[in-house]
Amino acid sequence: MSKPKVFEKPTGVKDYLPAAVAKLRAIETNVLQCMERWGYQEIITPTLEFYDTVGVASSTEDRKLFKLLDRNGTTLVMRSDITAPIARVVSSLLKEQAFPIRLSYHANVFRAFEAEAGRDAEFFQTGVELVGDASSESDAEVIALAIASLQAAGVQEFKIALGHVGFLTGLFNETLKDRQDAQQSLKECLLNRDYVGYRETIKSLQLTAVVQQELEGILRLRGGQEICTQARQVTKDPIAQQSIAHLCEVWDVLKAYGVSEHVLIDLTMIGDFSYYTGMTFEGYAADLGFPVCSGGRYDNLLTQFGRTAPATGFALKTNRILEVVSKRPIEEPHRVLITYTASKREEAFRRAKELRGQERIMVETRLVADVSGGNQAVKLVTARLEDGTYSVNGIAYQNVIEIG
Amino acid sequence: MSKPKVFEKPTGVKDYLPAAVAKLRAIETNVLQCMERWGYQEIITPTLEFYDTVGVASSTEDRKLFKLLDRNGTTLVMRSDITAPIARVVSSLLKEQAFPIRLSYHANVFRAFEAEAGRDAEFFQTGVELVGDASSESDAEVIALAIASLQAAGVQEFKIALGHVGFLTGLFNETLKDRQDAQQSLKECLLNRDYVGYRETIKSLQLTAVVQQELEGILRLRGGQEICTQARQVTKDPIAQQSIAHLCEVWDVLKAYGVSEHVLIDLTMIGDFSYYTGMTFEGYAADLGFPVCSGGRYDNLLTQFGRTAPATGFALKTNRILEVVSKRPIEEPHRVLITYTASKREEAFRRAKELRGQERIMVETRLVADVSGGNQAVKLVTARLEDGTYSVNGIAYQNVIEIG
Repeated sequence: MSKPKVFEKPTGVKDYLPAAVAKLRAIETNVLQCMERWGYQEIITPTLEFYDTVGVASSTEDRKLFKLLDRNGTTLVMRSDITAPIARVVSSLLKEQAFPIRLSYHANVFRAFEAEAGRDAEFFQTGVELVGDASSESDAEVIALAIASLQAAGVQEFKIALGHVGFLTGLFNETLKDRQDAQQSLKECLLNRDYVGYRETIKSLQLTAVVQQELEGILRLRGGQEICTQARQVTKDPIAQQSIAHLCEVWDVLKAYGVSEHVLIDLTMIGDFSYYTGMTFEGYAADLGFPVCSGGRYDNLLTQFGRTAPATGFALKTNRILEVVSKRPIEEPHRVLITYTASKREEAFRRAKELRGQERIMVETRLVADVSGGNQAVKLVTARLEDGTYSVNGIAYQNVIEIG
Repeated sequence: MSKPKVFEKPTGVKDYLPAAVAKLRAIETNVLQCMERWGYQEIITPTLEFYDTVGVASSTEDRKLFKLLDRNGTTLVMRSDITAPIARVVSSLLKEQAFPIRLSYHANVFRAFEAEAGRDAEFFQTGVELVGDASSESDAEVIALAIASLQAAGVQEFKIALGHVGFLTGLFNETLKDRQDAQQSLKECLLNRDYVGYRETIKSLQLTAVVQQELEGILRLRGGQEICTQARQVTKDPIAQQSIAHLCEVWDVLKAYGVSEHVLIDLTMIGDFSYYTGMTFEGYAADLGFPVCSGGRYDNLLTQFGRTAPATGFALKTNRILEVVSKRPIEEPHRVLITYTASKREEAFRRAKELRGQERIMVETRLVADVSGGNQAVKLVTARLEDGTYSVNGIAYQNVIEIG
């Protein structure tokens, strides 16, 4: 174990320099504003939570939680998602507030050991939770809001893949009853989108030809509304049938929102959170292998905090969206330098104050040597560049104003 | 050690509900915008840093740092301030960038065990660092910016107390040479503003009448520019004299900014950070016992990260400012509910979309039972209140639009 070098930071965490911060802030502001327009108000929860409550309720694998002990020896975690903390708040501080409750957040979350996979240990999520409404209207609302949020964030091309936890649960219970291990293997293949592995696992299970066909057939269940009709043929399991019926209702509502062109049904999709109980969805941007958002229904989580209620929501993966929009130019503030001699200080500061009253302007002031050369000022080397801007001691300015 | 209850959170951390978040966000936005106008651009550093580098360089007492181990057994800390991380960034990612470098931040910081004193373990700071400029101009700039930031945050009445580390260091070295313990006791009294204790400690030290008078005399060194003249009489120590001369220069620049009415010189003030090397200041709001901002010059910190440079800066204590402004009303968004029957869904969503295009509006939609009563809708109980607003199932709306 060697000592870290002075300039190093822990694996998987980042510094964001001003150009990146400006983009991140633009995403944050535009998305939160969009969410507010849909009735979602922002809350902030603490970075540290109890392991035994929020830590256990979160969907994060235990080994990926950052844990520490408080002075009483109680285990704390650095939050790994915001859904579980919001469930805690809805069940405590907001327990008198009538449903539906619409909340939004923008926050950093922590996952240990992700660095191995080249992933960040600390990253941002911007999302909403709609608590207290079990209807397909509310599922469609959060999907439509996810679409509006991606657009507000500046993601132009994307697709939402929509699935339902109940379809696979029902199908697997029908075809692989009492074979939990087999179910688990198949689910893992689907979670990793490893369709080759999925087919091979099916072959290894010594199933009847009918069941084998049935399980393989679901890989074709990806597309538009027609998938609902096709899926109904695949299985007679009541849970699976109910799930498909629910997705059809959600689809109808999405059509009314005018956003179904962005959505495709994908019944092979498994949400990445263990607490999902109903529909789940993921958003994919063009040219990016990872999802840029994910969401779903979680009707059992609130019970753990003592206020039983259905709930649905999503989170944008804000850092991935930052990657998507990173190459686009951002409107930089107009950067002005006012140089002054000591005797003209008041005039310089007055001018700076006036300019600072304008929009998107950045005004720096700098003392320069007066005729006597006797003060503390550093000599400035100013060059006017071809594009009309200035370079002063290596820093670029749109304008330089000399006073004195 | 008892298990925490499901709805509990760790000691010293907070949930911020929408009304508080709206105020906190207003402070954050207005202050960061003000800082940008003065040439300070925002950066974001990670929550976790190495203990051996940033943790040790921070001014926080070791026992107050939240520590944890990474998978390699290296000790990490949850950042306890942002000044040390920024020193790391200036010395690494920004090492090619010419001075002066102006950076701003808004971030949460962590201090363990503060709960004992009823203080938060996690709280927000909004501040700036001006790196690479040793002049009194730059000290005055950050003080003037602290004043502008407090005003931008909505703090109307406040005073900035301005001191200098060098004055007390010089005076104590002159009068209490080789008596480090005595110096430490006196400094602690001043840090806690315990003037009775300060006088008692002096009496207990068996000093000559002249020295005793000299040390007691500094308690009167609080006021306007006249204090500079008075302080010059108190001690002949060259470091103390130099410090006073520097404060006089800073005062002149503050006069040119037109803000000296907000400032008083207080030579008994000791900055609360061990890394301060020059002027230090604290801002006090009317009706609040604690400072709302603090800052100072720290010319030795950057060296620890390998890029020697003078620096000065300050941080607003954002949570305390939130307390100051908490009673003031905030402009709430206009809250509208659109109810619709299933057959009028498209029309309802179209209307919602139109309204969401307007400023500061929050539009919720809700399916209600149609004539058949056959859908999933919950029955709504709507009441029109005396002030013209509505209450729907216990939630207040400025307007309710029924479609269908």
